[in-house]
Amino acid sequence: MVAPPSVPLLLDGRALADSLRTKHAPDVAWLKEAGRTPRLVVLQVGADEAAQAYIRGQRRGAEAWGLSYEVRTLPADSGEAAVRRAIRALNADRAVTGILLSLPLPEGLGVRALQHTIDPEKDVEGVHPENLGGCFRGRGLLPCTALAAVALIEMSGVALEGAEVVVVGHSDIVGKPVAMLLLGRDATVTVCHKFTTGLAAHTRRADVLVVAVGKPGLIRGDMVKEGAVVVDVGINAVPSDEGPGRMRLVGDVAFEEVAPRVAAITPVPGGVGPVTVAMLMRNTVLAARGIPPPDDPNQLPLFAH
Amino acid sequence: MVAPPSVPLLLDGRALADSLRTKHAPDVAWLKEAGRTPRLVVLQVGADEAAQAYIRGQRRGAEAWGLSYEVRTLPADSGEAAVRRAIRALNADRAVTGILLSLPLPEGLGVRALQHTIDPEKDVEGVHPENLGGCFRGRGLLPCTALAAVALIEMSGVALEGAEVVVVGHSDIVGKPVAMLLLGRDATVTVCHKFTTGLAAHTRRADVLVVAVGKPGLIRGDMVKEGAVVVDVGINAVPSDEGPGRMRLVGDVAFEEVAPRVAAITPVPGGVGPVTVAMLMRNTVLAARGIPPPDDPNQLPLFAH
Repeated sequence: MVAPPSVPLLLDGRALADSLRTKHAPDVAWLKEAGRTPRLVVLQVGADEAAQAYIRGQRRGAEAWGLSYEVRTLPADSGEAAVRRAIRALNADRAVTGILLSLPLPEGLGVRALQHTIDPEKDVEGVHPENLGGCFRGRGLLPCTALAAVALIEMSGVALEGAEVVVVGHSDIVGKPVAMLLLGRDATVTVCHKFTTGLAAHTRRADVLVVAVGKPGLIRGDMVKEGAVVVDVGINAVPSDEGPGRMRLVGDVAFEEVAPRVAAITPVPGGVGPVTVAMLMRNTVLAARGIPPPDDPNQLPLFAH
Repeated sequence: MVAPPSVPLLLDGRALADSLRTKHAPDVAWLKEAGRTPRLVVLQVGADEAAQAYIRGQRRGAEAWGLSYEVRTLPADSGEAAVRRAIRALNADRAVTGILLSLPLPEGLGVRALQHTIDPEKDVEGVHPENLGGCFRGRGLLPCTALAAVALIEMSGVALEGAEVVVVGHSDIVGKPVAMLLLGRDATVTVCHKFTTGLAAHTRRADVLVVAVGKPGLIRGDMVKEGAVVVDVGINAVPSDEGPGRMRLVGDVAFEEVAPRVAAITPVPGGVGPVTVAMLMRNTVLAARGIPPPDDPNQLPLFAH
């Protein structure tokens, strides 16, 4: 007799995104009634091909949440001063409650200097240093992908206090913020990356493994602990066997090998991606609230599901 | 024949502080000539006993560096609004280039809200969220103790890229920032704390161990790897055997047990403490520079020794 295959909990990002939207619907309704409809303006310089899929996802998200959404496109040859002026105009526009600078920018534009120009109270992507610093304290408009990773971990039901967490990837916008947020939940956190020697020794002791590298198949079946929770932030396009030229999306985790060993895992697509968009919408709502509604004098909790 | 005792490299904080001062002396001279003498104002609310030793150290540091230094004391029963007004006045005063809010504050005052009120460009202690966020990118006015820990590690000569670093302590102002700065140097970083199970298993694999907990004797001889570099951020007063009522300062590391096993270690006192004060002075110089001097159009490097 063959043992039945293990069935891990699939951390369904679309379901989590829906529950976030439902949870915040009363806030959106209240803001609209008060004449403060949350309004997200995306500024792109030129129209990078790769960015358009994310923009489509944002637009669908904004429609579902009932938020105002607009993409403004500057000429691809705009200088840094022109982009800075456009950001300042959005900062000054009281009807605009959220600003997102679409990446990548054309070469020669200083990404960080421009992100620093965004009013931190409208920085709904959480890329201004003040909001990155908010990750030390778990408050403010925090980076959306890091928030999504933490929310999916919480969805698994794992107890984070004292848990061994390993984050693979040390980018400013995912690896580092997610590490800080999980330290804020009193996990023991290790951050690995391309300079780490002995990656597998680290990943094998992880109760919770977050992978954000952008390298398909990086995490193999023998690199995870039995019963772990795995969050796969990677989104990579690889050739599909459905036909020449066809592509499919995969994460950084070899899903077929890893899934049978673990307690819970995010699919790609349908895991971190939709929750990231939902967190962007949620940040846009938080930014628009400014003054809390009269019936709720407190800050919203960071994760609301 | 008895093997001679190992002699670890003692990471001399006073020597490092001196070299930082020498390194920046030309900047101070240039700023004074330009009529922009760096001026640090410390705001205390009441006069907490424990804070006075740190204030004395700052005053000595400022004298040695040739910086202007003043302590302003508000009444211990000042409300938060009064403290906020005092901070805003310092923000607006062009002669004041650095502001430090002395801790602890009397009960009832919101530390973080008040720190957030300090102009980030005058926040020479690196406690404003914008400067904490700067730790993600290694730029700006960074937290002084975290800078001191990193500078002492660099003093040891250890190669950080790919090194296993373990930080014990996950405070907003030491543990988290030092972890981010060392990730910026491409070390593999684990942050442990009071909720960590199996602390010794982590510390024993550390090529570099940073301890910032405030618990004398926490790290014993059998908890460190042979040849490691150990930075002890703790400063604890314990009873001295020199007589009843006499106290002496010790770190979080059981120095006598640990020193013979390691390649390099900071003493307490005389390790992290003096470098922290030097980093405060250095941040005050950086803040005063504002516009770089004509002969040096670039940012100063973060660590200059």
